[in-house]
Amino acid sequence: MIRNIRVERIAQTPIEQQQIELVERKCIGHPDSIADGIAEAISRALCRAYIEECGVYLHHNTDQGEIVAGESLPRFGGGKIVRPIYALLTGRATKTFDGINIPADSIAVEAARSYVKSIIPIMNLERDIIVDCRMGTGSTDLRDVFKTCGGSAMMRANDTSFGVGHAPFSETESLTKGVSDYIDEVYRPRNPAIGTDIKVMGLRDGDAITLTLAVAMVDRYLADIGEYVETIARLKETIEGIAPKFTDRKVHIDVNTADDISNGVVFLTVNGTSAEMGDDGSVGRGNRCNGLITPCRPMSMEATSGKNPINHIGKIYNLLSTQLANTCVAEIDDIDEIYIRLLSQIGHPIDQPLVAGVQVIPKAGVELAAIKPAIDAIIDTGLENIGSITEKVIRGDLKTF
Amino acid sequence: MIRNIRVERIAQTPIEQQQIELVERKCIGHPDSIADGIAEAISRALCRAYIEECGVYLHHNTDQGEIVAGESLPRFGGGKIVRPIYALLTGRATKTFDGINIPADSIAVEAARSYVKSIIPIMNLERDIIVDCRMGTGSTDLRDVFKTCGGSAMMRANDTSFGVGHAPFSETESLTKGVSDYIDEVYRPRNPAIGTDIKVMGLRDGDAITLTLAVAMVDRYLADIGEYVETIARLKETIEGIAPKFTDRKVHIDVNTADDISNGVVFLTVNGTSAEMGDDGSVGRGNRCNGLITPCRPMSMEATSGKNPINHIGKIYNLLSTQLANTCVAEIDDIDEIYIRLLSQIGHPIDQPLVAGVQVIPKAGVELAAIKPAIDAIIDTGLENIGSITEKVIRGDLKTF
Amino acid sequence: MIRNIRVERIAQTPIEQQQIELVERKCIGHPDSIADGIAEAISRALCRAYIEECGVYLHHNTDQGEIVAGESLPRFGGGKIVRPIYALLTGRATKTFDGINIPADSIAVEAARSYVKSIIPIMNLERDIIVDCRMGTGSTDLRDVFKTCGGSAMMRANDTSFGVGHAPFSETESLTKGVSDYIDEVYRPRNPAIGTDIKVMGLRDGDAITLTLAVAMVDRYLADIGEYVETIARLKETIEGIAPKFTDRKVHIDVNTADDISNGVVFLTVNGTSAEMGDDGSVGRGNRCNGLITPCRPMSMEATSGKNPINHIGKIYNLLSTQLANTCVAEIDDIDEIYIRLLSQIGHPIDQPLVAGVQVIPKAGVELAAIKPAIDAIIDTGLENIGSITEKVIRGDLKTF
Amino acid sequence: MIRNIRVERIAQTPIEQQQIELVERKCIGHPDSIADGIAEAISRALCRAYIEECGVYLHHNTDQGEIVAGESLPRFGGGKIVRPIYALLTGRATKTFDGINIPADSIAVEAARSYVKSIIPIMNLERDIIVDCRMGTGSTDLRDVFKTCGGSAMMRANDTSFGVGHAPFSETESLTKGVSDYIDEVYRPRNPAIGTDIKVMGLRDGDAITLTLAVAMVDRYLADIGEYVETIARLKETIEGIAPKFTDRKVHIDVNTADDISNGVVFLTVNGTSAEMGDDGSVGRGNRCNGLITPCRPMSMEATSGKNPINHIGKIYNLLSTQLANTCVAEIDDIDEIYIRLLSQIGHPIDQPLVAGVQVIPKAGVELAAIKPAIDAIIDTGLENIGSITEKVIRGDLKTF
Repeated sequence: MIRNIRVERIAQTPIEQQQIELVERKCIGHPDSIADGIAEAISRALCRAYIEECGVYLHHNTDQGEIVAGESLPRFGGGKIVRPIYALLTGRATKTFDGINIPADSIAVEAARSYVKSIIPIMNLERDIIVDCRMGTGSTDLRDVFKTCGGSAMMRANDTSFGVGHAPFSETESLTKGVSDYIDEVYRPRNPAIGTDIKVMGLRDGDAITLTLAVAMVDRYLADIGEYVETIARLKETIEGIAPKFTDRKVHIDVNTADDISNGVVFLTVNGTSAEMGDDGSVGRGNRCNGLITPCRPMSMEATSGKNPINHIGKIYNLLSTQLANTCVAEIDDIDEIYIRLLSQIGHPIDQPLVAGVQVIPKAGVELAAIKPAIDAIIDTGLENIGSITEKVIRGDLKTF
Repeated sequence: MIRNIRVERIAQTPIEQQQIELVERKCIGHPDSIADGIAEAISRALCRAYIEECGVYLHHNTDQGEIVAGESLPRFGGGKIVRPIYALLTGRATKTFDGINIPADSIAVEAARSYVKSIIPIMNLERDIIVDCRMGTGSTDLRDVFKTCGGSAMMRANDTSFGVGHAPFSETESLTKGVSDYIDEVYRPRNPAIGTDIKVMGLRDGDAITLTLAVAMVDRYLADIGEYVETIARLKETIEGIAPKFTDRKVHIDVNTADDISNGVVFLTVNGTSAEMGDDGSVGRGNRCNGLITPCRPMSMEATSGKNPINHIGKIYNLLSTQLANTCVAEIDDIDEIYIRLLSQIGHPIDQPLVAGVQVIPKAGVELAAIKPAIDAIIDTGLENIGSITEKVIRGDLKTF
Repeated sequence: MIRNIRVERIAQTPIEQQQIELVERKCIGHPDSIADGIAEAISRALCRAYIEECGVYLHHNTDQGEIVAGESLPRFGGGKIVRPIYALLTGRATKTFDGINIPADSIAVEAARSYVKSIIPIMNLERDIIVDCRMGTGSTDLRDVFKTCGGSAMMRANDTSFGVGHAPFSETESLTKGVSDYIDEVYRPRNPAIGTDIKVMGLRDGDAITLTLAVAMVDRYLADIGEYVETIARLKETIEGIAPKFTDRKVHIDVNTADDISNGVVFLTVNGTSAEMGDDGSVGRGNRCNGLITPCRPMSMEATSGKNPINHIGKIYNLLSTQLANTCVAEIDDIDEIYIRLLSQIGHPIDQPLVAGVQVIPKAGVELAAIKPAIDAIIDTGLENIGSITEKVIRGDLKTF
Repeated sequence: MIRNIRVERIAQTPIEQQQIELVERKCIGHPDSIADGIAEAISRALCRAYIEECGVYLHHNTDQGEIVAGESLPRFGGGKIVRPIYALLTGRATKTFDGINIPADSIAVEAARSYVKSIIPIMNLERDIIVDCRMGTGSTDLRDVFKTCGGSAMMRANDTSFGVGHAPFSETESLTKGVSDYIDEVYRPRNPAIGTDIKVMGLRDGDAITLTLAVAMVDRYLADIGEYVETIARLKETIEGIAPKFTDRKVHIDVNTADDISNGVVFLTVNGTSAEMGDDGSVGRGNRCNGLITPCRPMSMEATSGKNPINHIGKIYNLLSTQLANTCVAEIDDIDEIYIRLLSQIGHPIDQPLVAGVQVIPKAGVELAAIKPAIDAIIDTGLENIGSITEKVIRGDLKTF
């Protein structure tokens, strides 16, 4: 069956030429990101358990859950957690299948704790967090849709929903994501006072970019407010140093601007996340699956994290449309911007979206007709191989937030 | 101080001329909407209590919370709830101020239960729902920012964040919202079998609009599957009848397309919401503050519901930017589309955004210069009177989802 | 089969002649009693549902559960609840049987809320209490034991356990229970300032009885501390007036002795129970099934409340042994004291205890042989008709705490 | 001030001469014992924290809490936990004192998890148990009573309450406790298939003792049902071998009599406790502080575990009266049985009970007057040094269940 792929040229001021651009990233230890990461970790753990115990992937959606903030008393040199963070795991999972019991609740609790340990190794899981679980078993009709598909046949869409993706990243987007990645991968390992809960807000006003970071600092690695101030200053300098890799525009960096140093009001934490002292988090409230929040770009409200990667459109189509947009830009020279929307129809095979809508801004002087066939082909092939999304997700090769 | 208002003309294919347009609305009884509504009801109840007991509005943010689905056994003629819905209230609130204790937890529980009763009067609150509360008290720094503002001085932004609004609604948007409102206000009162949990998905492909509704039907008002089918058919017809009020385009209506009537697989519920049988809900995962999810338009990821309406940018700027966009369109003839983004700076007065970015598509043949002053004036006045947003929210005059 | 009934004469200083005697009663609104009452209300509601929906009584044990205290701000004239009481319903119940679903969780929540409303009508259930439920489904083996018994055949003991009962009440016991009943039935209806949470402690030292009452007073019915003091004084007088009905001994009454009137430290509450402000409660921690805690008498540690009344020895044998002791004393003149212990054997019919051990103190000059046959007969008949215990419990005719 | 000590000779058939005697012990891994042990571990941890951070012991009572059973799928060779045990920590504690914050909730969670790990080392705490915490802060009046006592002055009773103790153990009591201890200390370390959840029920009928053990067996250490049967048989034999150390009476041992081997119905568990599969537990529902449940002896209903060891009568007087009874029997030759009851008066110094009531059965031919002075002296000295109870409890030298 021929897929319904609609490619249109769109007249639109390219993002880089618009006056104002906003981009945000909530790093790995932000309460919303913790919620996302736990949700996704549970889904991956369930997938592994299902395939191991039943030989098939089973219905589940753990794209819910709540991080309820604790209370802490940070102090230079090392403070303490007063009331643990409370993480409520919800969503639903298949718990029995074909006479086999799958210990979904225990799997969820273990996956959540193990995930938190992996991203915040300094947290004392024995006293700083409570992981509770109220996971249900889902509504029957959705599971039926799911069960009727064999392992080989094409999955059917669980819902009428859609996914959106765009490429390439603008400079502000690249910068925002790049700074976050740099801190995670390079800077924090050598500077443990930098917590994992960082909110990076990028604002481009004409050609002036302001990058505002709110960084939860880790008290045990800072002797006093002097060291705090120095550490912030060094981080600021470092970011100023790497910014030119992402843009030639002038970048102004602000770190923890809400601090009032003379009054000792600083963003200090015990474990490096505001979840310990007042900020709740929820699945799906943070980054989209490309790692950013981009209010100047089309976005889906669907939480990508925690949804089952087998037939849940809200996950698969967001991941796939982003991947396809990137592929188009990588393989086709003449694209300035591309936006891809995949819209499902509940109950239909997921490789046959109701419509795959593509909006392109070709490079100046390029006709749509010149690049349309290549785009069509990439979309078509991507949909044909949609199963690879599932596999990559389960292996943890695709990030969802 | 002069406000930083930037109005730019944007070259963009107007939404009505784009090939594909997607719009979604989650009606009042959708699990995400229930979560939003509870969050907002708590915030309003807290505001009333604060002003009554302390004479000032105090810090709170209840823009979190989770609806964990229950289990039900719907049956024509009337089924039963097997396991209650579990609603967890979280967020934080000021609980003591100036020697006065504000019973925030009790207020929250009462507001939540009362709200649910108001929107789903057929629910038996004594057995169908559990409302639990784990509300905290917030982090000190944020509260300090808040406390330093007197009642008269301008509030200061709680965060570096932004709000986005657009106007006017496209036909598909108007249709999606209009059908939902019609059902809520006119149709359901006379047709109680139509539950409050309806998901309306609008897809425009060129000039063909498909409106897909997933409607949770209420079992006690339906004798058998025959009546179910008839009721669905009547609803479909009714919507077909009102669609022309919103658009001249051809509108195809689908209702409960996932049903498999011959196998008795239908979307039947006890209380008219899927929250009773498998669908969790979270604050901020559903409609934006204009009542819609519009992936083809710029959107903010911030939950508008439940945030304090005094200084929380994520709430105030979303509501204000939407209102300003509407005012511009209402008062200035020559606008085809307008997008307004308000960006705050933490700690600065909320009537002084870092930037108010306006993107306009003027009507054909209209110069930006001709309408810019009027736009400027509306934005400027709106910011000056930003306090009216707070008041309207507290009175319940502004919808947040 | 002949029942193993062992009657022995026991040489023992009768309770009335011992120097010291201690008796305690926790009235209906004491946190432990609330927990007991909820547990029993759930069991009764489940029994009704089982018989209605399945035609048989099914396995359940709800003899667990926790009342976690809230926080309140009592104030003369009417204070407020700051944080609701949190009631956790646990235990386990059969949720499906023979293809029928029994909505055990919803039943439990409704029964608990309805029970609390009935005993504390002044409580605002919409804001003063959270009723949560984490009820399980029990271990398979116990349920099997249960299922093998038909409705007609004799039930088999769920456990190796025992029940204990004694009669008659001593004067101190009668006084303690009598005063509590008088307040509940006669005095509180006319004096609503007297809360339902009263702890009555009776101490007999030789012939001097001291009755100490800790009475949670209801703030809304007391204008000021003067009225508080007067109300306490009137209650004291009233009890002094009725004490002679129960004993000729001198009775000294103390009410709220921990008060420090001059410093305003009083036992004032919003709803008449300390559960609202600091005292947790648990099933089985309060009164035994005769309504008292009697550390000078043999007692069972088993919670009577909430256990299933069909085959749970911890419930049935405690109720039956108490009833049999009372019957013996009522029908046989020459008994000073009688103690009955019924010991079960797991898996054996409940009318065939491993041993029914009876200890008697006959009246002076009476031989055991003269009364043994009558005792034997009462025990034997009581065991034969053990099913009537079940029926009475389900009808609510037997109190369990 | 002279203490009110009343020693009376009581005419009573000594326990060993009564026809029927019942004794029960719930071993360390029984759900009620787990609840007790957690409660006590939290109290000890809080005491350590209070003294470390504030230099004084502060008010707390953690003698509440609930173990809600999980679900497991035991299987020979090793099964799995399907749904974790849910442990709810409640009670209350002082959280701020003199400007110092004591992280009571975090301490409680850590103490509980650490305790469970210590008694059930084979449990995977990352997936087999959820430890949640809803600890409050107590009612003001009780804390005031507590605060008025300095570290040196004598504490004042928190309540009008009492403690009861007896000595010496009967043969059946010694046997019941002795077998339990033997298994814990000697047998299980070499036989890991024996779980920690053992219920030992001792029945003496005349001179025939039946000891019934319900032993949760650990699946991973048992290859098949054959090994299960053998292991049970070896345990039975072992106990038969040690029984003569405690009594010359004939002892019949039953282990897991509810098993139905031919149908594969056995008491098999994953972690050696029924808390994993259907049996809830509560603080204060199990053993008294002498380690036994003795319905033929006077008992207090008060939970000893978890209460603060500073001024809580329900804890201190139970421990002290038991210790004093033991001392009397150890130091005075001519006592057959002794029962000690200590009754407090709220607000009075704890070394000055309202009455210390002692009931003695002297050895045949011994006059009360001959031993009364020695008893008086032991009681008096014991009360004088009542502070040593507190210290021993905090060091963990006194068992509370």
